[in-house]
Amino acid sequence: MQVHIFRRPPVGRRNLMRIHGCFALLLIAASMPASAAPEVGKSPWGPADEIGRLNLMTAESRAEILKQSDASQAYDLSVDYFVGMPSWHGIGDPRSQYWLTHTPRGTEVDDPMQVGRQANSRVSYTGDAVSMYTHMGTHIDALNHFGLNGQIYNGFSADEHLGDRGWRKAGAETIPLIVARGVLIDVAASQGRAMLPDNYRIRRADLERALMKQTVSLRRGDVVLIRTGRMARFQEGQAFIDKAPGLDMDGARYLVEQGAMVVGADNLSFEAFPSDDPVNYVPVHTYLLAEHGIPIIELAFLEELAKDRVFEFAFIGGSLKFRGASAAPIRPIAFRLVKKPE
Amino acid sequence: MQVHIFRRPPVGRRNLMRIHGCFALLLIAASMPASAAPEVGKSPWGPADEIGRLNLMTAESRAEILKQSDASQAYDLSVDYFVGMPSWHGIGDPRSQYWLTHTPRGTEVDDPMQVGRQANSRVSYTGDAVSMYTHMGTHIDALNHFGLNGQIYNGFSADEHLGDRGWRKAGAETIPLIVARGVLIDVAASQGRAMLPDNYRIRRADLERALMKQTVSLRRGDVVLIRTGRMARFQEGQAFIDKAPGLDMDGARYLVEQGAMVVGADNLSFEAFPSDDPVNYVPVHTYLLAEHGIPIIELAFLEELAKDRVFEFAFIGGSLKFRGASAAPIRPIAFRLVKKPE
Amino acid sequence: MQVHIFRRPPVGRRNLMRIHGCFALLLIAASMPASAAPEVGKSPWGPADEIGRLNLMTAESRAEILKQSDASQAYDLSVDYFVGMPSWHGIGDPRSQYWLTHTPRGTEVDDPMQVGRQANSRVSYTGDAVSMYTHMGTHIDALNHFGLNGQIYNGFSADEHLGDRGWRKAGAETIPLIVARGVLIDVAASQGRAMLPDNYRIRRADLERALMKQTVSLRRGDVVLIRTGRMARFQEGQAFIDKAPGLDMDGARYLVEQGAMVVGADNLSFEAFPSDDPVNYVPVHTYLLAEHGIPIIELAFLEELAKDRVFEFAFIGGSLKFRGASAAPIRPIAFRLVKKPE
Amino acid sequence: MQVHIFRRPPVGRRNLMRIHGCFALLLIAASMPASAAPEVGKSPWGPADEIGRLNLMTAESRAEILKQSDASQAYDLSVDYFVGMPSWHGIGDPRSQYWLTHTPRGTEVDDPMQVGRQANSRVSYTGDAVSMYTHMGTHIDALNHFGLNGQIYNGFSADEHLGDRGWRKAGAETIPLIVARGVLIDVAASQGRAMLPDNYRIRRADLERALMKQTVSLRRGDVVLIRTGRMARFQEGQAFIDKAPGLDMDGARYLVEQGAMVVGADNLSFEAFPSDDPVNYVPVHTYLLAEHGIPIIELAFLEELAKDRVFEFAFIGGSLKFRGASAAPIRPIAFRLVKKPE
Repeated sequence: MQVHIFRRPPVGRRNLMRIHGCFALLLIAASMPASAAPEVGKSPWGPADEIGRLNLMTAESRAEILKQSDASQAYDLSVDYFVGMPSWHGIGDPRSQYWLTHTPRGTEVDDPMQVGRQANSRVSYTGDAVSMYTHMGTHIDALNHFGLNGQIYNGFSADEHLGDRGWRKAGAETIPLIVARGVLIDVAASQGRAMLPDNYRIRRADLERALMKQTVSLRRGDVVLIRTGRMARFQEGQAFIDKAPGLDMDGARYLVEQGAMVVGADNLSFEAFPSDDPVNYVPVHTYLLAEHGIPIIELAFLEELAKDRVFEFAFIGGSLKFRGASAAPIRPIAFRLVKKPE
Repeated sequence: MQVHIFRRPPVGRRNLMRIHGCFALLLIAASMPASAAPEVGKSPWGPADEIGRLNLMTAESRAEILKQSDASQAYDLSVDYFVGMPSWHGIGDPRSQYWLTHTPRGTEVDDPMQVGRQANSRVSYTGDAVSMYTHMGTHIDALNHFGLNGQIYNGFSADEHLGDRGWRKAGAETIPLIVARGVLIDVAASQGRAMLPDNYRIRRADLERALMKQTVSLRRGDVVLIRTGRMARFQEGQAFIDKAPGLDMDGARYLVEQGAMVVGADNLSFEAFPSDDPVNYVPVHTYLLAEHGIPIIELAFLEELAKDRVFEFAFIGGSLKFRGASAAPIRPIAFRLVKKPE
Repeated sequence: MQVHIFRRPPVGRRNLMRIHGCFALLLIAASMPASAAPEVGKSPWGPADEIGRLNLMTAESRAEILKQSDASQAYDLSVDYFVGMPSWHGIGDPRSQYWLTHTPRGTEVDDPMQVGRQANSRVSYTGDAVSMYTHMGTHIDALNHFGLNGQIYNGFSADEHLGDRGWRKAGAETIPLIVARGVLIDVAASQGRAMLPDNYRIRRADLERALMKQTVSLRRGDVVLIRTGRMARFQEGQAFIDKAPGLDMDGARYLVEQGAMVVGADNLSFEAFPSDDPVNYVPVHTYLLAEHGIPIIELAFLEELAKDRVFEFAFIGGSLKFRGASAAPIRPIAFRLVKKPE
Repeated sequence: MQVHIFRRPPVGRRNLMRIHGCFALLLIAASMPASAAPEVGKSPWGPADEIGRLNLMTAESRAEILKQSDASQAYDLSVDYFVGMPSWHGIGDPRSQYWLTHTPRGTEVDDPMQVGRQANSRVSYTGDAVSMYTHMGTHIDALNHFGLNGQIYNGFSADEHLGDRGWRKAGAETIPLIVARGVLIDVAASQGRAMLPDNYRIRRADLERALMKQTVSLRRGDVVLIRTGRMARFQEGQAFIDKAPGLDMDGARYLVEQGAMVVGADNLSFEAFPSDDPVNYVPVHTYLLAEHGIPIIELAFLEELAKDRVFEFAFIGGSLKFRGASAAPIRPIAFRLVKKPE
C-alpha cells in the first residue's frame, strides 16, 4: 500500500517541519479566527452558494477574454484515459478500466439484438464501458472533495448533505462551464529545468520569479496553471506519482491572495507531500477547497503551451457533470490571446 | 430485454418498408459501387486517416468562427450523469454507477492513510468513482462504433485492429478538440410542437423546412444538431428512450450532401427505429460513421439554444480521450455569433 | 424507479394493516422491552459475538448430520449468474455485469504479455471479470445488512464500525462454513400449487400445515428453506421480482421460536412486501438479522429438492468471504439423509 | 507493468532450458500426434462434453467418500476477498473492489425508498457491491481459460463459441458440484520447509517424495492440492505473487498420469514461471485445461490441513456459476476421513 506519502517523515525532518509549522501558524493567525484549528470558509456569495470563487466569472469576463482569442490553434490540456494510466490508488481506489461490451465477432456469436447472423456480420458493432476514480486523468476537484471537521466549503455538513449517491451540495454537476483568462506559471522552465526535482516544494518566491520572467501578472478571476514538468513521466506509471514536486502552503497562499478563481498543475496531487501540518495531511487542498472555495485542476497537460511559451490564454472547459461527485474529468482548451489584454 | 426496437416490424408494415427499401436502394445505387451491399468508406485524406470529416476543420475555420463569437453567455449542451439516468441498456450494457470510495465518517473508521483518528476527523475526505457505458449522457460516437462487414471507416479491420483494450484505430482519443460553426435544426419547433411524436422519422423535407424557417443554411464543416424536443422526458427514464423520434436515412443523406462535419441530436439513438433495412439494424449509423466518417453526438442538451432561438453558434467541445473507445462523453459549449458570418 | 414495493399502500388497505399492526405490537410486547420501538438483540454468546445463531453449530451437530448423508446425489441449491439476471436494482444498485478482459483474438492484437504474435495465437487466452450487488443470485445476508437505530445485531454501531470498505463487524467473511440439518418447507406444494399467488404472505399456519403434510418437524439449529415456487419465473427478469410472495412477520416469529439457525427462501426478498409496519419497511429482515442474529438465504434454488420431495437433508455451504460485506453469494449443496435422524 | 514473468529469461538460462525443452519434446512425442505443436484434447466423453475429467465423478464416488467423512471439523480452504488483496493484474485486469451502495447515514440523506427520514433512521440499511477479476481469491479455472490455436478443450473454437458475454461452451456454470476424495501434497513440509524458495519448480520427483512421506497414494478421480507454503505471504500483496514457486510441466504430467480429476495449489499461478517453452507462456495451463480437460484450483488455503497433517479428505465445493466465465470463486470444505478408504 502506497500510503507512505501521507505518513509523517522521520524525526530529523520533522524537527525542521515543526519550525516551518510554527511559522505557518503565525502566518495563518493573521487571517484566521482566534481558534487554532482552521474552519471551512463562509461564502461571500451567500449561504446557498456552492461554487465559491467561480462566482468571479461574469458575462463580461467571459466576453472579454474570448474577444482576444485566436483559435487558429487549439491547445489540448488533457491527457488520455487508458488501462494502466497512473492514478491515485495508494489506498485502493479503482484504477482506470475499459472493457468491450460488444464486438463485431462477439455479436455474431451472441446475437444480442436477435437480428440473425447475417445482420450481425453486416453491421460490425463495437460498444464499451469504462470505470474510473473521479480523480483520474485531467480533472477538476469539486469543493466537496476535502472539508474540515465534517463540513465542506460554506458550512454544508456531511451528516446532512452526503448521501450514498454523493453530495447534495457542491457536487461536480454544479461546476459551471469555465471561460476565463488562463495563466501558465512555468516554474520548471523559470529555473532552467525540464522538470522540478523530486519532492520539490513550490513556494511563493518560485511563483513570483517565474511570473516575472514571463512578464505576466495574475489578476482576479484567473485560472492559474502551474507547470512542474512532471508530465514527462506520465507514461511511466507509478514513477509519475512517487515523490512528485508540488505546491507548498506558502505558494497556495500567494495564489489565494492574487485572486485566483481556479488553480491547477500538471502533477497528480497538486500539493507537495508530505504535509508539514501534523494534523492535516492535505493542508493545501483544505485551504483552497474548504477555506477559500477554489477548485483545483490536476493532471493538466501543459507541455504544448510551455513549448510555445503561451503564458496567457483563454481557458475554456466544461467538466463532466457527475452528480454529487467530488471531481470530474475535463478536457480544457486553450487559445492564444491576440493582444495583451489591457 | 428491450430489444424489440431492433426487431423487424409486423408484416403489414414490412410491405410498406419493402417499397421504401427499394426506393432507398435505387438512391444508394447512384453513389455506391455496383455491389449491392454497402462497404466502408475510403478516406479522401489517405489510408492512415482515422478522423474522417473532422479533417474539414482548419486553423482558418476555427479562427473564423471564434472571431464572431460572443461569450457573454455560455450555453451548456450537456446533461448530468447520475445513477438511474436513461441510457442504452436493452442488451445488458452497464448503467451509470457512482459510488463513494472515501467519506468523512468512513475514513475515521478505516484510517486508510494511517494518519490517526484526529487527522481523519480534521480533514473530511470525500472520494468517489463512476462506471458507465461510453454511450451515456451527452457523448460523441467515434468512427469505430459501427462498421460494415468486419471493417470500420477507411478499411481498418476488427481482426487486425481490435484488441481487448479497444480499437487501435479511430478510438475516441483520436477525436480532436472541435471548434466549428454549429447549427441547430429545431425540427420540433418548426412544426409548432414541443416534441416530435413517438417514432417520428425526420426526413430531408423536415430538415429543409426547419432551416428555411430559421433562415439558416448549412455549410461544409458544420456541426449540425437536430432538436426533436425529446429531452423534456430525460428525467423520466425509460420513457425517454422508448419510441423516440429520430433521423431517417433520407435525412441522413441530406446532411452528408450538405457537407456536415459532425452531426447530432437531443435523443439517445440519433436515428429512427426500427430500421427499414432488413439486414442492417442501424443503417444511419453505419452510413454516417462507416461510409462517410462523420461522428455523431447524442443526448445533446439543446433546450436553452432553442428557447433563445440561437440557430447558429460557435461549437466548442473536447470529448474525453478514452483510448480505443467507441465513444466518449463531451460537455460542449455554444456561444452566440455576433454577426452573421459572410 | 421500482420503489413502489416499499411505499405505503392506499388508505383502505392501510386501515386493515393498522389492525394487524396493533395485534403485532401486542405480540411483540410479550418479548420486547417496555420501549415501543424494537432494538437490536444482545447476543447470548457475548459482547464480541458477530455470528449470532450460527453459534448453534457444533462439532457434534456437523458430524451428526453428515453421518446420515447420502451423497450419491448432490443437489445444487444455486442459480446461475449472468448479465440480465433478475436482481434488486429498484434504487440503482448495480446489476450483474460480466466482461472479457482477454480473448484469443484480442491478445493477438494487443500482445499484453509481450510474447509476440505466434505465442499469442498458440495460447488462446480467455480472462474475464464480473461486478455485482452482493445480494444477487443465491446469497446469504450477513447480520450487518439491516440494523435498527444505527446499530446492528449485538450493538455494533455504524458510526464506530462502518468504514468505506464495509463493516468491521459481522461482515460476510465472518460467516462460517455451514454444515447443518436442512429442512425444506414447500408451502406452494402443501397448497397444491406450483407457485404461491402474487403478494401471498406466508404465515405461521402456512408453515405448520406444510410441515405437517411433510411429516417433518423443525429442530433447533436447522437451516430452514421455504419454497414459494417463484423460481419458475427466474428467467423472466422483473416478473420474478414484482409482487413476489414472501414471509409475513407472523411466519418469521414462528421460525425464530422453533430455533432456526439460518432461514431462507426461493424468492428475492424473503419477506412479503409491502411491510405492515409504518416505520419499518423491512420488518422481517430487521427482526431476523438485527434482533435475533439469524442470517437469511435468498434466491435458493429448491426445485430439485421439491421435485424429489427431499424435505430433510444435509445442508453444506460456504459463502464467499467478502470482507465487511452485507451479503455474499453461496452455492450450497444438499444431500439426502439415509435414515430419519432420531 | 509486471509482465516480466512471462518474458523469456536471459540467454544463459535459456540454453539450459533448451536442453530441458528437447527432453520434454521427446516425452510429449510419445503421446501426441505427429505434428510438433500440441492440439486441444478430444474428450473421451464425446463431442458435446464440456467438463472433461469431472466426468470421473459418479454417484458411487461421491457416496463412497462422504461415507468416510468426519464433519466434526470443517476445514475452510478459501481466503478472504478484500480491497488490496493480491491478484493477477500485471496486464491491467481489475483488482478486487468493494463499495457501499447503501449505508445507515446515507439512506437518511438520500431516502432512496421514499419512506421518510424516520423510517430510514429506524431501519439501518447497508448494501454493497463488488467487482473482481474471475481469477481472484480461491477459485477454479474453467476449461475455457486457456486453449490452443483458437480452440478450447474438445475442439470448441473461439470464433464460433465466444461471445461478448463469455463462452457458450465450458463456462464456469458448467462445473458441477464437486464431492470427491481430496489429497494434499505438502511439498514444502516434505522438504522440511515452511515455504518453497522463490521460483522453485515442483517436479515429479518432488510430488512422489512428498506422497511417500505422507504414505498416501493418488487415485483416479482425486482432487489433488499442492502446498508450496506461499500462502504465508498472502497479506503482503505483490510479494505473494512475484517469483512464486509453482508446478513444472514434468510435475503436471505426473498428475495427469495418476488420474487427477482436479488439481490445485496455494499459489496464484499454479504453474512455475517463466515457461520453458518458447512459444507457450503457460504450458502447464494449456496442458491441463486444453489437452486433458482438468480444471485448476488456485489460491487454495491449505494451512490448516497442513498443520493437522490431513493429507486425505473429502473435498466438497461448489464454484459460483458465472455463465460463460473462465473461472469462478469457490469456498471448498474439507472433512477428515474416519478410516483409510480401502
